[in-house]
Amino acid sequence: MQSLPSASEVSRPFLTWQRILDWAQSHYRDRTFSKDERIPARPGLLYLVQRGAVRLVGTAQISVPSRRKSASISTEPEEAFLGFVGAGHPFEIVAQSPFTLQAYAHVEQTSVIWMYWHDLDNWPHFRREILDAFRYQHQRKLLWLSTLGQRRTIDRLLGFLTLLVEEYGEPRDNGYCLPYPLTHAQIGSAIGSTRVTVTRLMGRLRQQNLISIEEDNLICLPTMQTPQDPDA
Amino acid sequence: MQSLPSASEVSRPFLTWQRILDWAQSHYRDRTFSKDERIPARPGLLYLVQRGAVRLVGTAQISVPSRRKSASISTEPEEAFLGFVGAGHPFEIVAQSPFTLQAYAHVEQTSVIWMYWHDLDNWPHFRREILDAFRYQHQRKLLWLSTLGQRRTIDRLLGFLTLLVEEYGEPRDNGYCLPYPLTHAQIGSAIGSTRVTVTRLMGRLRQQNLISIEEDNLICLPTMQTPQDPDA
Repeated sequence: MQSLPSASEVSRPFLTWQRILDWAQSHYRDRTFSKDERIPARPGLLYLVQRGAVRLVGTAQISVPSRRKSASISTEPEEAFLGFVGAGHPFEIVAQSPFTLQAYAHVEQTSVIWMYWHDLDNWPHFRREILDAFRYQHQRKLLWLSTLGQRRTIDRLLGFLTLLVEEYGEPRDNGYCLPYPLTHAQIGSAIGSTRVTVTRLMGRLRQQNLISIEEDNLICLPTMQTPQDPDA
Repeated sequence: MQSLPSASEVSRPFLTWQRILDWAQSHYRDRTFSKDERIPARPGLLYLVQRGAVRLVGTAQISVPSRRKSASISTEPEEAFLGFVGAGHPFEIVAQSPFTLQAYAHVEQTSVIWMYWHDLDNWPHFRREILDAFRYQHQRKLLWLSTLGQRRTIDRLLGFLTLLVEEYGEPRDNGYCLPYPLTHAQIGSAIGSTRVTVTRLMGRLRQQNLISIEEDNLICLPTMQTPQDPDA
């Protein structure tokens, strides 16, 4: 028994994966989505990404009224990017007023299967793997929260990108790259900033060779991150 | 089997709790800490709060060099408050360079027991409850991340306090209150802001009756949150 799952172990397809897929198909519990299509996920059910990638998004309907009369309060709730769920990984939706989570297909041909938790009664070992996967996701979110507590936006940005590439990155010529694009607006929504600010700060990180942008607009971290001299 | 644990169910003492405590004591796996004392927790082990409350803190050693020569870069890493772990709840430590987590006793007489994951092989049901507790903590952190994505600091602050009181609050005369104090610096470290800004914005939230401060400096949410008229 492995006590602390590493990224590669969690990525490993579940042992009973094929049997679960067969079960889902025979029970009409699978569906394929187009890029950016919303996945109609409900709280209380368990979802597994079969192919592609899912983007989790959170909405906070909390807005303190502004004191200035002229400042109109946006009625559009802000959506925060909460991370990806890759193939072979589980996710679930929480709803706790005034917060809601939503799931979107992040890439074309994203397939998802779903089940009730009691459907797993027959597969106790698989349920254990699912729970371990959520435990791992929780550990990652604690690291994510650690970087979001930093005061400078550029530190939050670099910390956030480091965590994302570490978890989802794939090796390329110049380092590790995210396998799918992420817009500056989406990045801003995760770190409490704006698209404009993210664009500006990404430029600074590129100038300092702390990140690079490869073809297809993929964000990469150089393999060797040598300490930077600010006066170089 | 309950698929989605509610807050009250997770708070319920584990069924085999007393047996686990006896086991921990007989194996010298328990220790009591003073307020703000650091708990020497290590990655790979499982910790359970027996009494009191633990404060989780994350440190991000990421700092982008400033372009201005005059701006000295703080060598002190920023510590971010990541939440409480109350009695009966589990926690674990992750270390993933450049991030580290640490645990502190948040109140006097905080007792913690610890074990290896394989120690739970004899208690499969208890292990399941532990994993469900981590699953619940993960859900709470996703909501937490949803509010930290908001652009206005005051919205992040109110969202953060709402989530904290919702999870740890106890009923009082005027609403629900956190059972232990939290400094403005600690709040700032969670929402990417400073002590000074938090103090100013807490004043605004109190003026608008969105929060109140009770004796012993405890933060409370009024029971009935009626919609505020900004011009009232």
